Amino acid sequence: MNEAAKRIKQNLIDFSELGIWIAMGLLIGAITAFFEFIYQMGLETVLKIHSELNPWILFGMPFAGLLLVVLFEKYGKKSRKGMNLVFEISQGKERWIPKRTLSLMMFATWISNLFGASVGREGVAMQIGTTIASFINRRFPFFYHEKTIFLVSGMAAGFAGLFGTPYTAVFFAIEVLVAGTLKYRALPCTIAASLMASWVGGLLGLNAETHILPAPLTISSIDQGWKYLLLGIGFGIVGGSFAWISKKFRGWILKKIPDGKKRVLIVGSILAVLLFVLWNGRYSNFGTNLIDGCFYKPPMTIYPWDWLFKMLLTIGCLSVGFVGGEVTPLFAIGSSLGFVIGPLFGMDPAWSAALGYAAVFGAGTNTWLAPIMVGIEIFGFGGFPAFFIACSAAYLVNHSQSIYALQQRYEEEKTEA
Amino acid sequence: MNEAAKRIKQNLIDFSELGIWIAMGLLIGAITAFFEFIYQMGLETVLKIHSELNPWILFGMPFAGLLLVVLFEKYGKKSRKGMNLVFEISQGKERWIPKRTLSLMMFATWISNLFGASVGREGVAMQIGTTIASFINRRFPFFYHEKTIFLVSGMAAGFAGLFGTPYTAVFFAIEVLVAGTLKYRALPCTIAASLMASWVGGLLGLNAETHILPAPLTISSIDQGWKYLLLGIGFGIVGGSFAWISKKFRGWILKKIPDGKKRVLIVGSILAVLLFVLWNGRYSNFGTNLIDGCFYKPPMTIYPWDWLFKMLLTIGCLSVGFVGGEVTPLFAIGSSLGFVIGPLFGMDPAWSAALGYAAVFGAGTNTWLAPIMVGIEIFGFGGFPAFFIACSAAYLVNHSQSIYALQQRYEEEKTEA
Repeated sequence: MNEAAKRIKQNLIDFSELGIWIAMGLLIGAITAFFEFIYQMGLETVLKIHSELNPWILFGMPFAGLLLVVLFEKYGKKSRKGMNLVFEISQGKERWIPKRTLSLMMFATWISNLFGASVGREGVAMQIGTTIASFINRRFPFFYHEKTIFLVSGMAAGFAGLFGTPYTAVFFAIEVLVAGTLKYRALPCTIAASLMASWVGGLLGLNAETHILPAPLTISSIDQGWKYLLLGIGFGIVGGSFAWISKKFRGWILKKIPDGKKRVLIVGSILAVLLFVLWNGRYSNFGTNLIDGCFYKPPMTIYPWDWLFKMLLTIGCLSVGFVGGEVTPLFAIGSSLGFVIGPLFGMDPAWSAALGYAAVFGAGTNTWLAPIMVGIEIFGFGGFPAFFIACSAAYLVNHSQSIYALQQRYEEEKTEA
Repeated sequence: MNEAAKRIKQNLIDFSELGIWIAMGLLIGAITAFFEFIYQMGLETVLKIHSELNPWILFGMPFAGLLLVVLFEKYGKKSRKGMNLVFEISQGKERWIPKRTLSLMMFATWISNLFGASVGREGVAMQIGTTIASFINRRFPFFYHEKTIFLVSGMAAGFAGLFGTPYTAVFFAIEVLVAGTLKYRALPCTIAASLMASWVGGLLGLNAETHILPAPLTISSIDQGWKYLLLGIGFGIVGGSFAWISKKFRGWILKKIPDGKKRVLIVGSILAVLLFVLWNGRYSNFGTNLIDGCFYKPPMTIYPWDWLFKMLLTIGCLSVGFVGGEVTPLFAIGSSLGFVIGPLFGMDPAWSAALGYAAVFGAGTNTWLAPIMVGIEIFGFGGFPAFFIACSAAYLVNHSQSIYALQQRYEEEKTEA
């Protein structure tokens, strides 16, 4: 009886803790969505100007890159670390994200996209979320030992607010910080932040990405499973290669041209010429043109080499100083790859593009549940079995490569025989 | 270039390992489904005989229990440990599951159900899977250090074969063995085993459980979220209490009546009388009568106390020697609880029953993704947001109680402030 009373009391304490976490999450979510609104307004303006001045504005790209390199060297050494700073805080090596990260990163993404670099936008959206979460965390000394929960919630809010996929955001944020483990304790705050950001984002008119696919894909258990398995392996290799080549190229170019300013001018010029020559900026910006090309009816032309060029140019741009993130480019690479290899298996290209969209994202970020979830949130629940198989396969063959260099890998202890 | 070659070679090695794991999984899945066919045939026969002799056969229950206690004492001390043996092997404290577990457990579940004890069937189905997986593992010394992967695959096959929900089975098996961590390395074998068992099970006519719900449940982000949150908290408390009361009652009765034979005779008699008096065996067997009562149109009568009686009687039966498992009773408890509390929130009772079905199962087994998955596999994808919120809430308030006493809890290290 006494123990039952103790248990009830403990329950009440835990409920109030649950309540506090949910409140924190709602706060993080709401503020993040508000800043993302500003971010998105800026991006839309920038893209409009870019499209008017395209492709000639590309020749300003190296100088824009130079500006960003100088800016970060002078004012934002720590901010420039981007997601790696998030990992360092979570691993206890750093304490806070500087407030200025928010404005610096937003500005840098605007500039990068204005001049047509091949970069995404979710990476920075997540950094908006983590900066706000870190800022709030700093005001509550009681929660100083819970930094990871705040960071995870901020990432989820950032992803969900801009992208309108709250469930994907929860899984992604929880999965990505420690590959192979889910931080279940972070759930209440993360879920609250994610749903709130998605809701406020929706009210503010931030786009919820959805694509309509042809007739729903259903598989009867394992009859067709081998197709998704093989496609998934292909997507996994490409996603893993994206992360692997990024790492190698970054290291190589850093040794080759140690001076950051020279580096961005030289490599930036080469990239600008390539972006100009290859169909006048087809591979500039997020890559939503390629994604739309795969899914809208009638489909636009997708070249068999689109995925490869988009991949290499994105790696180039992000390696020398342009800012924006890898996630949307990964979506673009995956869909344009899926679009061209699906028909080899007798599949509707839009469907294999959908599988590629999800699976390459998962393989590049070394996550498993997030890509399955993004598949069903963006393309509808009907394809669940196919997304499940393709994303699982991609996750398993990506060799634990991740675009995030400092992602911790959870090593499982093997049971002694 | 050399490194690229090495990487390609490594990829090929990993692909062949992947292939071996998939082959192992398919083998485990196929054999498990075959034995489950025998198990299910037996169960159907037994339930038919039971329903003809009900309720008078209940008075044989204490003697049936005595038979089982004697049987396990004589021939199956290790087998009797059930799921705990699985946990011990995974933790390196034991090596193998004795082959006889399979026949003993099947027989014991048949006898328990023949005489109308309130027990499930999935528990034993999972033990069929793990016994087969352990048997196969033993033949491959090369895999002696991978016992956990075999066990997880066996559990998934056992769950999927009988229940026809392969995706739930994957998450459940991976989640349950170490609460709070997902063993991602176990994926290829587990997925293959699960899909194969489900497919073969389907061919052999093992039932895939599905229920049709009224108009699909959709929520626009967080408008209705509080309802699912509150319901989820309720389900979490009940599911956690199931596990907690089980543990307490088992300990208490063991001290009170240390002799196993006497224990089953005395407690078994009390339970038999209760089962008889309370609507002539309404709470006997799996509890599918309650589940059907919630979902079939027109709904049968569900009493407000159904969930409580089912819970206490199941705990009683499983604590003294009857065999079968907790999972189906947890489904029954959850749906009959949801059915009566949903209307207090203005919800269609069938919908809240569906949420309870999933969330109480998750809270009782201390799993998070498996109950979300079971919700959408059994009731359709439309309710995803509601299942997500209710099951997350239930998982968070269950206090890490689990029906499996030896489930390891994954302790997260907190980041230093």
